[in-house]
Amino acid sequence: MLAASAPDLTAVSVEHLLLLIAVILVAAKVLGEVAERIGQPAVVGELLAGVILGPSIVGFIDPTLPALHLMAEIGVVLLLFSIGLETDLKRLMSVGGAAFTVAIVGVLLPFGAGFGVARALGIELLPAIVAGAALTATSVGITARVLSDLGQLHSVEGQIVLGAAVIDDVIGLVILAVVSDLVAGNAPSILGVFRTTAMAFGFLAATLLLGRVVLPPLFALISRTGKEHTLATMALVLAFLLAVAASELGSALIVGAFAAGLVLAPTEHAPVIERGIVRLANVFVPIFFVAVGAAVDVRTFGSPGVLVIGLALTGVAVLGKLAAGYAPVWIRARKTLIGVGMIPRGEVGLIFAQTGLAAGVINAGEYSALMLMVLVTTFIAPPLLRQLITKAPAGPSGSQPDAGAVVEMTTEA
Amino acid sequence: MLAASAPDLTAVSVEHLLLLIAVILVAAKVLGEVAERIGQPAVVGELLAGVILGPSIVGFIDPTLPALHLMAEIGVVLLLFSIGLETDLKRLMSVGGAAFTVAIVGVLLPFGAGFGVARALGIELLPAIVAGAALTATSVGITARVLSDLGQLHSVEGQIVLGAAVIDDVIGLVILAVVSDLVAGNAPSILGVFRTTAMAFGFLAATLLLGRVVLPPLFALISRTGKEHTLATMALVLAFLLAVAASELGSALIVGAFAAGLVLAPTEHAPVIERGIVRLANVFVPIFFVAVGAAVDVRTFGSPGVLVIGLALTGVAVLGKLAAGYAPVWIRARKTLIGVGMIPRGEVGLIFAQTGLAAGVINAGEYSALMLMVLVTTFIAPPLLRQLITKAPAGPSGSQPDAGAVVEMTTEA
Repeated sequence: MLAASAPDLTAVSVEHLLLLIAVILVAAKVLGEVAERIGQPAVVGELLAGVILGPSIVGFIDPTLPALHLMAEIGVVLLLFSIGLETDLKRLMSVGGAAFTVAIVGVLLPFGAGFGVARALGIELLPAIVAGAALTATSVGITARVLSDLGQLHSVEGQIVLGAAVIDDVIGLVILAVVSDLVAGNAPSILGVFRTTAMAFGFLAATLLLGRVVLPPLFALISRTGKEHTLATMALVLAFLLAVAASELGSALIVGAFAAGLVLAPTEHAPVIERGIVRLANVFVPIFFVAVGAAVDVRTFGSPGVLVIGLALTGVAVLGKLAAGYAPVWIRARKTLIGVGMIPRGEVGLIFAQTGLAAGVINAGEYSALMLMVLVTTFIAPPLLRQLITKAPAGPSGSQPDAGAVVEMTTEA
Repeated sequence: MLAASAPDLTAVSVEHLLLLIAVILVAAKVLGEVAERIGQPAVVGELLAGVILGPSIVGFIDPTLPALHLMAEIGVVLLLFSIGLETDLKRLMSVGGAAFTVAIVGVLLPFGAGFGVARALGIELLPAIVAGAALTATSVGITARVLSDLGQLHSVEGQIVLGAAVIDDVIGLVILAVVSDLVAGNAPSILGVFRTTAMAFGFLAATLLLGRVVLPPLFALISRTGKEHTLATMALVLAFLLAVAASELGSALIVGAFAAGLVLAPTEHAPVIERGIVRLANVFVPIFFVAVGAAVDVRTFGSPGVLVIGLALTGVAVLGKLAAGYAPVWIRARKTLIGVGMIPRGEVGLIFAQTGLAAGVINAGEYSALMLMVLVTTFIAPPLLRQLITKAPAGPSGSQPDAGAVVEMTTEA
């Protein structure tokens, strides 16, 4: 195969991409292993690998590289697909009210407080709105991965955080659309907001309802070819198609991938599919986390202005989500755990900040302050979660995450 | 995760890429299954899926899309890595003389005959050289995949074809360098040719020698983390790094990936690594074959000039490689099988044609004639091979490919 000598049709050469993937995987693996040795979730090491390899320190990874962006996106799609595959929809629905409450409060409080703090620190109206918006959304990817690393994905708190983070993601898209309208100087339309919201949640509902009817017979047919890998490949195709459909309908890629996992989870093929996806995920998911880490530039954090605004925003970002964890007052669960689980802003916060910067609404200092907020919330949550879990191993919701005792934890359902 | 709404930093959106991968995988799977049902290797169906989805017919796949090119290259790297993992170096070396002879004769005969036919049909000197050069190299990817599909990878003939195709690939790179010099109007330097050849083969020898010393202890260390997927991931990293190193040293990406597989094959970790790589290969390898199919535009084949030149070149392309199969006269093996195994030109022939076209040395008609040659040689070999294998199931080399009876088949070693 002589393609190495073919006329270079690509923005990045194959050699460059392979080298990039190789270095990312080694750095993620080594720092992930180190993180685990000191009792932290592996994802902390992977994010740190990104910060180190990124432009702030080593400068090996250019986070704006399109090919890296594509690989990272495939990674987070695979992550949410495999999380969906492990999720029991009934169980998730049984905490649906609590998750919804956490999501809504977790958007309103940080937005209000972030906006207020920004204004109090002398920031103009529009950039203050962007700052508040950047504080609203939770990083589903980081949250789900940390819960999974800590074996808490199936606990009541894990399910509430997962559900709330997914709902948050849909709300976040709506807010992003509104903010984009505002920064473009347009009045956001109430009708548009309503339509986007309805489409996003409608897609999820339609997929779950239709998927349960259409997919089991389809996958039974595929499994009759007798090839295990065909089943896993077709499941991947489904995840990709639903991700694209979700995105086209105004929801997020990962919401579609998560829905694909949810639909396939109760089928008899789920274990086979999961085995196939895990191998792919092992390669692509670390690329996502390293890319998120690389997108944070720590060089600008030294300036006093950035530090003051950044840490003030970080404070309300943490407190806002913590309070949101206590919002579903009627449930019996470790509410601090829920709140802390919602803290990481990760790539979602970065996108808000980047949108504001690209539109010229926020300046470089404000952008750096938001990056500081993203960095701290992202890195603070995993160790805090770990400490909370080891501290209270036998809280009211128990430490056996798969005990199936969800119903008694909640007064609704 | 809001990346779907992020400022579009990529030449192709994530949605587009996911949709492309999904459609490619479904088409490859369906046509691959159909091919198998009618007794053909699955790869024929995958190549056909590419021709159908490509610009000639449906127009869904743009073969010049950089992201597709990158995915396809990862596919062929994974393919050759897994072929290497299944290859016993001792066994390959025992037919090394035969493989080398097949490779050399299989380059010289098609080049001479192709050049002669082209000149006889009134083609100018330089384009005739390009046409001859396009006839020289065998597609390692297609050859290896067909042999694997037919369960013949481990037969003597399979090993000779594999070895010869890899050697061909290195020679092909040297020829491409010479041809590129010629089309650029430079005199090719004998010293340059010698250096490129020495570096390419030197890399392979150094990797195999050093790798056997350095890698087993390294992988023993990694396996002590107790995580199976870490082992597979680090093996992937090795394959990528050696592929890049090979390419940088003037050899081809896939030669490095193949060498990585060869080095790891005798270790105790090979089965674990293979299990991990197979899942990735199931996704990426079909993308490679579909991309090769899509790069062939069948719309131009109708013109009489294209047909005459194309079929004449196809004739000498087939006969030249067939004769090369008989070149190692001293071995006892199914020599027709070897010759037919060398016939597919696949992506390698396309690259020569594209280089000539891009440099303005060959015209659109000559380019189409070369594409016709690539198409016919690529599609003719798999069914011919299958017929030869089922016809002579108990030839002198036997039909038990893993009988371990290589030594008696060859008078050298």
